[in-house]
Amino acid sequence: MRAIRAQIANRSLTPGAKLPSIRSVAANIRVSKSTVVEAYDRLAAEGVIRSRPGSGFYSAAPLAPLSLAELAPRLDRAIDPFWVSRQSLEAGPAMLKPGCGWLPSEWMPEEDIRRALRNLARTTVHPKLTDYGTPLGLAPLRQFLSRRMAEQGFDAGPDQILLTESGTQAIDLVCRLLLQPGDAVLVDDPCYFNFLALLRAHQVKIVGVPYTPGGPDLERFEQALTEHRPRLYITNSGIHNPTGASLPATTAHKILKLAEAHDMIVVEDDIFADFEIEPAPRLAALDGLDRVVRIGSFSKTLSASFRCGYIAGRPDWIDKLTDLRIATGFASSPLSQDLVLNVVSSSTYRKYLETLRVRLSKARADTIRRLRALGIEPWIEPKAGMLVWCHLPDNLDAADVARRALNDNIVLAPGNVFSSSQSANSCMRFNVAQCTDDRIFATLRKGNATVRVRMRGSRERTKRWLMMTRRSAVSAGAVR
Amino acid sequence: MRAIRAQIANRSLTPGAKLPSIRSVAANIRVSKSTVVEAYDRLAAEGVIRSRPGSGFYSAAPLAPLSLAELAPRLDRAIDPFWVSRQSLEAGPAMLKPGCGWLPSEWMPEEDIRRALRNLARTTVHPKLTDYGTPLGLAPLRQFLSRRMAEQGFDAGPDQILLTESGTQAIDLVCRLLLQPGDAVLVDDPCYFNFLALLRAHQVKIVGVPYTPGGPDLERFEQALTEHRPRLYITNSGIHNPTGASLPATTAHKILKLAEAHDMIVVEDDIFADFEIEPAPRLAALDGLDRVVRIGSFSKTLSASFRCGYIAGRPDWIDKLTDLRIATGFASSPLSQDLVLNVVSSSTYRKYLETLRVRLSKARADTIRRLRALGIEPWIEPKAGMLVWCHLPDNLDAADVARRALNDNIVLAPGNVFSSSQSANSCMRFNVAQCTDDRIFATLRKGNATVRVRMRGSRERTKRWLMMTRRSAVSAGAVR
Repeated sequence: MRAIRAQIANRSLTPGAKLPSIRSVAANIRVSKSTVVEAYDRLAAEGVIRSRPGSGFYSAAPLAPLSLAELAPRLDRAIDPFWVSRQSLEAGPAMLKPGCGWLPSEWMPEEDIRRALRNLARTTVHPKLTDYGTPLGLAPLRQFLSRRMAEQGFDAGPDQILLTESGTQAIDLVCRLLLQPGDAVLVDDPCYFNFLALLRAHQVKIVGVPYTPGGPDLERFEQALTEHRPRLYITNSGIHNPTGASLPATTAHKILKLAEAHDMIVVEDDIFADFEIEPAPRLAALDGLDRVVRIGSFSKTLSASFRCGYIAGRPDWIDKLTDLRIATGFASSPLSQDLVLNVVSSSTYRKYLETLRVRLSKARADTIRRLRALGIEPWIEPKAGMLVWCHLPDNLDAADVARRALNDNIVLAPGNVFSSSQSANSCMRFNVAQCTDDRIFATLRKGNATVRVRMRGSRERTKRWLMMTRRSAVSAGAVR
Repeated sequence: MRAIRAQIANRSLTPGAKLPSIRSVAANIRVSKSTVVEAYDRLAAEGVIRSRPGSGFYSAAPLAPLSLAELAPRLDRAIDPFWVSRQSLEAGPAMLKPGCGWLPSEWMPEEDIRRALRNLARTTVHPKLTDYGTPLGLAPLRQFLSRRMAEQGFDAGPDQILLTESGTQAIDLVCRLLLQPGDAVLVDDPCYFNFLALLRAHQVKIVGVPYTPGGPDLERFEQALTEHRPRLYITNSGIHNPTGASLPATTAHKILKLAEAHDMIVVEDDIFADFEIEPAPRLAALDGLDRVVRIGSFSKTLSASFRCGYIAGRPDWIDKLTDLRIATGFASSPLSQDLVLNVVSSSTYRKYLETLRVRLSKARADTIRRLRALGIEPWIEPKAGMLVWCHLPDNLDAADVARRALNDNIVLAPGNVFSSSQSANSCMRFNVAQCTDDRIFATLRKGNATVRVRMRGSRERTKRWLMMTRRSAVSAGAVR
C-alpha cells in the first residue's frame, strides 16, 4: 500500500494508469496473492485506486478539489440570520469564534463520550447498532426526560415526548404542524437568529416584541397580539439568547394569560437549561403543557456531534408530529439517543455540569471586565450561561466590525442578525467561553480605534442606549 | 445501591420518602461518606432517587407507564401511507415484519460498526466527538461519494454534495426548496409509500403514473406532464420500490427528454443502489445533475441506527439547500458521518455487500417459491434487492389480510399504501429477507383459506391482472 501511494504521489503512476497485476506484484515482493488482493482492495476502498471488473486495477483519476469556500471565511456573505451560523460552522480550526453559540470542544465531556462509545461497541443488543428507531425514540431516554421535567414542576409522560434530531428540528416540526404560510409569529427582539431563518423558511410574518431585562415588553406584547393575531410565540425563558436574561415569574404568568386570551401557542426552547445555577421559572411549569410546547436538546452541554433534541407537548399534537416526522425524516437515531442516555445518566455528568457552571461564571466575569475596558458595555450581567449581549462604543456598526474581524480570523456575532426590526446595529453577542484568546480583544480594540478618531461622546451614547432599552421593562411592569 | 433498590422494590421506602442521611449510612455500613455520596449520585442519575438541594435525597415518585400503543400493534389504525411505517417501526421484538423495507439486524455489518465505534472512541481529534458539523458535512465522506458517482458515470464534486440526516430528509429538503403548496408532483403508481406521506405534508397535488415492468407508462407520463405541468418527478430508477423493477435505458432517456421539454425536475432516490448485481442505467448518469437531483443513504446496507443521507445536485441548489438545512436542523452529525465513512471505506464492507447480494438472491428465490405455492403471484421476478411485489389470489383484500395478520404479530405491506390511485387493493409487497419464518406463510395460508370458500377463478383473475398491468409497458413501448 505504501509503495503504490508513493508511486502515485511521485507521478510514476499517473492518474488512470493500470497497476501491475496481482500475480506479478506477489512474485516481485514475495508475498501471497491474497495479501496483494487485500492491499488493492483497501486502496480501492480508500479511493486511491479503482477496480474495473475483468480488467484490473487503475490509479484513480484526481478529484475535483474542495472549493475555497470551505477553507476560508466568505467575506462577501450578507449579514443576515445565516451569517453567524455559516461563518462559525464553516470556520476552520484556525478561526476564533467568540460569536458562536457553543462551548469549545475542550470544555465538553469527552471522556464520558468515549466511555459511552466503548459501551455501545460492546452491546449485545443487536438492533441497537443497525435498526431504525421507534417513532417516538428510545423509551429510557424519554423516561429520563419525563423525570427531569417532573423535577422542573410539570408532568410530561414518556408518551408526550418525541425525540428529534435536534432542538432546531423540533421547532421546525412544531412549525410545520401548527403554521401555514402567512400566519403571524411573535419573537423577541432580539432573539436567536436561527428563529428568524427558520420562520422565513416557513414563509410566515415575523412580529418582533422588544425584549427587556424583565422579559418581553408586555405592553408591546399585548399590542402585537391584538394587531397581528399570532399563532405562535417562540422564546427562551431560562437563559435568553442573545441577552442571557431570564424570565421573571410575574412576566411568565402574564404572558400565559395573554396567550390564553388570544389563543396563541407558546414554544419554549429550553436549550440552555443545564447552564442554570438557580432554575428560573418556566412557562411549561406554569402552564403544564396545555398551550406551551417544550423544546430542548443536548447540543450545548453534551455534544453537537451526535444529534438529539426533543418535543414535549399535548398528546394529540405529539401523535401528529410523529406522523410528520416519519413523512419528513422517517426515523430518529437510536445510536445517538443511546449515547446521550449513557452520558446523561452517569454520575460523572452531573459533576461535570457543576464544574462547567463554575468555569462559565469565571469566564463571564473575565470577559465582561475585558469588554468594559474597551468601552463595550453589557446590557445586563447574566446570572448563568455563555452569552453576553453588549453595546459597542461610539455606536460602532457591528456588521462592519464583524466583517473586518473575519480578516483577523475571528467570527463575531453582530447585533442585527438577532433583530427582526434591524435595530441592534451597535450591539454584539459574545460567547464568554470562546473569549479566552487575547487576539479577540486586540481586534476589538483596533476596531474601536478606527472609529474613535471620528466620533465623540461614546460613553454618553452607551448610557442612553442602556437607559432606553432597559426602561421598557420598568414601564411595562408599571402599566400592568 | 442494591440495598436502596431493594427497599424501594419491597416498598419499605415508599415513593417520596426521605432516604437516610449520608452520614448515618456511612456509619452503619462502615464505608466512607464519599462512597455513599457516589452511590446516591448514581441512583439519582438513574432516576431511582431524587436530590433536593439543601434537604437530602428522596425516593423518586413512580412514573407514568409507557402507553400500550408502544407494546402492541394498533389494530384500529387507518390503512394510509403511514400504516406500514408505523406498524413496523413500532413493532416489538416479537413481531415478524415481512412488510417492512429493511434487512433483519442479524444481516447487517455489525462487526464493522463495532470496530468503527472503537476507532471513534480512540480518536484524538477532539471536535469529532463534540462539535457541530460543517454545513455540507464531513468532507472525506463527500469525497468518497463523489468518487462513487464518478464510477456510476457522472461528475459531482464534493461541493455539490450535501450530507443530510437521512434519504427521506434529503428529499424533504429538495421539496422544501422547489415546491409550493398546490404544485403538482409526479410519482409512480405504485411508489414508495413515504413519498405519498411526504408529498401530503407539502400540500402538493400528487399525480400517479402507472408503473410497468419497463418503468413508468410513457404515454400516460407525457399526458400527465401536459395536463398537470408537474414541477417534480420522484422515482427510484435502480431498484424500484415496491416493484423491484429497474429502469431500461431507453425509458430513462425518454423520461429525461420529456422532463426537459416540460421543464420538470427529476428526483432520483438511489437508496437501494448497493443491492444491485448489474448496475441499471441511472437518470443522473444520463443527465449529469442538470435537472436530476440524486438522493441516497446508507440505511439499507449499513445501519439505520445512525442517520446519514445525501443530496447531489446543481451547485446553486446545494447552496440554497444548505441554508435551508441550517434553518431547519442547524447541523448534521459528524459522528454519524464518521462512522459511515469508517465502515464504507473498509475492505470488509465490500466483501459483506457481495455476500449480502448472494444471500438476497437465495432468499428471493425461496420466498417467491413459497408465495407461488399459496397462489400469491409475483408481478415480476426482480433481479436484485429485497422487495417482491405480488398479487394475492382471489382478488383478496390486502388491507383486510394485513389487518388480520397483526393478530398473529405479523406486519404486512398492503398494496394500497403504495398506490396514489388506490388501485392496488389485491397487491402486497414482500421483503424476502424478512420472510424466513414459517409462521408468515401459515398466516398467509389461513388468510387465503378464509376467502377461498366463497370465491372461484382465482388463477384466472391473477393472470388477467398480470396481463393488464404488464401490458401498458408493451403498448407504451410500441407507441413511441
